[in-house]
Amino acid sequence: MSFTDPDRICGAPAVAALFACRPAAVLRLFYVPEQRFRAGPYCALLAKSRRPYREVPPEEMTRIAGTPHHGGIVGIAEPRSLMALPDNLAITGTLLPVLDGVGNPHNLGALARTAAFFGARAMLLGGMGRAGLSDAAYRVSEGGLEHLTLYRADPLASVLRGLAPRMLTVVAVAAGGVAPAAVPRDRPIALVLGNEETGPAPDTIAACEMRVTLPGSGLVESLNVSAAAAVLFHALT
Amino acid sequence: MSFTDPDRICGAPAVAALFACRPAAVLRLFYVPEQRFRAGPYCALLAKSRRPYREVPPEEMTRIAGTPHHGGIVGIAEPRSLMALPDNLAITGTLLPVLDGVGNPHNLGALARTAAFFGARAMLLGGMGRAGLSDAAYRVSEGGLEHLTLYRADPLASVLRGLAPRMLTVVAVAAGGVAPAAVPRDRPIALVLGNEETGPAPDTIAACEMRVTLPGSGLVESLNVSAAAAVLFHALT
Repeated sequence: MSFTDPDRICGAPAVAALFACRPAAVLRLFYVPEQRFRAGPYCALLAKSRRPYREVPPEEMTRIAGTPHHGGIVGIAEPRSLMALPDNLAITGTLLPVLDGVGNPHNLGALARTAAFFGARAMLLGGMGRAGLSDAAYRVSEGGLEHLTLYRADPLASVLRGLAPRMLTVVAVAAGGVAPAAVPRDRPIALVLGNEETGPAPDTIAACEMRVTLPGSGLVESLNVSAAAAVLFHALT
Repeated sequence: MSFTDPDRICGAPAVAALFACRPAAVLRLFYVPEQRFRAGPYCALLAKSRRPYREVPPEEMTRIAGTPHHGGIVGIAEPRSLMALPDNLAITGTLLPVLDGVGNPHNLGALARTAAFFGARAMLLGGMGRAGLSDAAYRVSEGGLEHLTLYRADPLASVLRGLAPRMLTVVAVAAGGVAPAAVPRDRPIALVLGNEETGPAPDTIAACEMRVTLPGSGLVESLNVSAAAAVLFHALT
């Protein structure tokens, strides 16, 4: 058993992904009457292994979920922990997102949703002050976090050096990088996205082979990190 | 004078855009001591027209802003209202974002930030249950809302029919549309983005000339509307 709090996975898409990806980790399930039909197959699965589930009124659900944004169904699961990065990471797919100190759990969730949408199967989490796998991150990811193998990447600069030459390491910067079309596609790409306020750390930038920049109109200074990531995931895959 | 509440524009990027785009609308300015240097030129401008400004401690700022996410500087401004759509809208730029019932003010703000980043100069707001220009929308837009002329588009389907043939009307749908690369670029594009849960309304879809879809991996059902918009703004401009 873990000594940390269990994960609270809120909302139909996130709960569906939880049961699809790690059904054995589910400890309990709660749902409101309107979600009874959706919850049925999950309850059947839990009953087989004698794990509890319960229909609750909406006001109790808000207390269980810790938020009114519970979507009427909440799975309580053993907390996930980040995997240690293996020496020889098996590279699946053409794109590996790498986060350097992304601090807002909503951005972490949004990045995971977009990465999974575009076919990423893993994500590296590195950098100082980074957001953890909070309830909010799971909810915003709409199941995306469940579909990604999550690795701890510390210290990030040396992890990035270790990925080359099997992957092209590309860091997104606000200015001074090449356009996405100029990034070669001869190797899978590890795409580094930096902290919301400060961007990628200097030693992260120095460790990457290329820098990429999305040219803007200049009317607003920058894109939100999850918007920039969506554009780059699409442009580079 | 307006009978509605004034806008509360929070955070340095949004306040900078407020003073750049509608300085005469600013009624008052508040800032915490750490933002004194940044506030200086704004205070000078307000002093000239005898409008008040004041340095306040952080705890008072949270009360003034109505949120702890005030970024240390808050401009109080005459509320903006949406413009009525002129019969012959002057089309500037290559892309006009059109929102159909986008209901979350954070998404409205995120869409405005991304649209302004990619050079849009106007945005049409239509559909049922749409989000208004709330403090949260202004804050999340980081100045993007100030740089866009905002038009009310009701009823949306007939507005879209009126835009063709000067613009190509394209609606983003979760399935069944063409890829972005298949959208012709011979006219400026009006790109319609739908409600977060229900997508664009059926009569909105019927009123558009083309449908566009971002192909996904199938691991998560859909992209967040602001992530999809970011990809499409970049792909279509």
